[in-house]
Amino acid sequence: MALDIIPDIATLRARLKTAPSIAFVPTMGNLHAGHIHLVKLAKQHAQCVVVSIFVNPLQFGANEDLASYPRTLAEDCEKLQAAGADIVFTPSVTEMYPTVQTMRVTPPPIANELCGAARPGHFDGVATVVLKLFNIVQPQVALFGKKDYQQLFIIRELVHQFNLPIDIIAGDTQREDSGLALSSRNGYLSSAQKLEAQRLYRTLNMIVDNVQKGHHDYVAIEAQSSQYLTQLGWIVDYISIRSAATLLPASATDTELVVLAAARQGNTRLIDNIEFTRSFAST
Amino acid sequence: MALDIIPDIATLRARLKTAPSIAFVPTMGNLHAGHIHLVKLAKQHAQCVVVSIFVNPLQFGANEDLASYPRTLAEDCEKLQAAGADIVFTPSVTEMYPTVQTMRVTPPPIANELCGAARPGHFDGVATVVLKLFNIVQPQVALFGKKDYQQLFIIRELVHQFNLPIDIIAGDTQREDSGLALSSRNGYLSSAQKLEAQRLYRTLNMIVDNVQKGHHDYVAIEAQSSQYLTQLGWIVDYISIRSAATLLPASATDTELVVLAAARQGNTRLIDNIEFTRSFAST
Repeated sequence: MALDIIPDIATLRARLKTAPSIAFVPTMGNLHAGHIHLVKLAKQHAQCVVVSIFVNPLQFGANEDLASYPRTLAEDCEKLQAAGADIVFTPSVTEMYPTVQTMRVTPPPIANELCGAARPGHFDGVATVVLKLFNIVQPQVALFGKKDYQQLFIIRELVHQFNLPIDIIAGDTQREDSGLALSSRNGYLSSAQKLEAQRLYRTLNMIVDNVQKGHHDYVAIEAQSSQYLTQLGWIVDYISIRSAATLLPASATDTELVVLAAARQGNTRLIDNIEFTRSFAST
Repeated sequence: MALDIIPDIATLRARLKTAPSIAFVPTMGNLHAGHIHLVKLAKQHAQCVVVSIFVNPLQFGANEDLASYPRTLAEDCEKLQAAGADIVFTPSVTEMYPTVQTMRVTPPPIANELCGAARPGHFDGVATVVLKLFNIVQPQVALFGKKDYQQLFIIRELVHQFNLPIDIIAGDTQREDSGLALSSRNGYLSSAQKLEAQRLYRTLNMIVDNVQKGHHDYVAIEAQSSQYLTQLGWIVDYISIRSAATLLPASATDTELVVLAAARQGNTRLIDNIEFTRSFAST
């Protein structure tokens, strides 16, 4: 079946009225294999797969890349058609925000840490637009990538705390052969920066190895890793070992862990993370 | 049909899965003819009428009447059965808030004026619980009374700004023969206070008459009315002539108006309002 491209809410709602089940993949477009992986996962969960493409002004800070964020609708639609998506919802800013959005979703306190510390208001904007999109699409299932780990955590909280009747399914981070996590922002990198960018995932793997070998001074490991990247020209926002259940700094008793990092190559901010289960007993 | 009393979300969702259409009346219980009027309106709009009874801690301030708020479940259920409601949803605080509600809905700026000025955080709590209840019940139609005019305004904004697929229907304020607006809080009044309480609606009617006679210095009218009630022993929170469309202070060009008041008899806070169309041209 052909992909339906629908830019307005009324048409989308009318089209979805007869859908027996809906899986939803919200995106900002410039789709890569990470998004397509989510679309394919979505097809396993519902008969109608809806993908939204909307570069949401609310989640960009004043000095961020809203204007330059890559917009590639034609290529995106080709990829979605090939992946078997049924509908792509492509609202304008006016369609999503016909009046000033004075009401927001206040995210949980964890939104002020990690990426939220460097991007104040970012997760307010994410939670607000995702709630709006959920109410427009009314899916039974929604899919998010694990690369945006903190975002995934906050969306799960949104669903839990606001009693949304939606199952959230997480897709594994898709990577280049080099290990570099796929991201629309990788397109900003020069070839030299892109080569160096591989080091972010390697550093996270080194941290996991260190923890698994029995090192448990997480603060020291974080500081050393951060210093290592800084010496190589990175600007490090954070490297942090956290509890996967709470996203709070990991304690000695936590075994389900995630190590997360955000660091810049030039003006390009990259993020990545690895979930892991600590394989030794606490000392 | 008998009224179903359902205290938990899972049972309610299962029961509503087969409902062809749902109208929803959220309440805090202690039902009076104002609530019953909404239930009867609801029956005109859907085949299944759900009423919730939940005294929501989130919308009470620290020094307010959460503990003493009247809880009269048995009588409420009798009234709902007689009025033809199908389901009453009676969740516990733990059912609605199984974990700390760290995420909130930020209401629009108007939430800081009128009742919001005297009750900081009140409309955050209202908007948050109403959004949760909407997501639990998933009605096509929801009904609110005009007595809580600012609340009704904020709920309409909630639906608009978060793209909720719900029609909001307003029920007219129900009154005693004396004109006193029905309210669960009227039960707090002594008989002398209740007699005096009638004056609130009479005062609002006097204000409407004054405006219709051509007086257009709204600030002066508000001040005079407030002084009048204060001299008679009331503690006046506000008396305000506003645009019905925006709830902002009415300007000379506004013709669709509402006059709202909140004032206390002893410890009991009463609110009331009158919508009206200004019947003379601006001078």
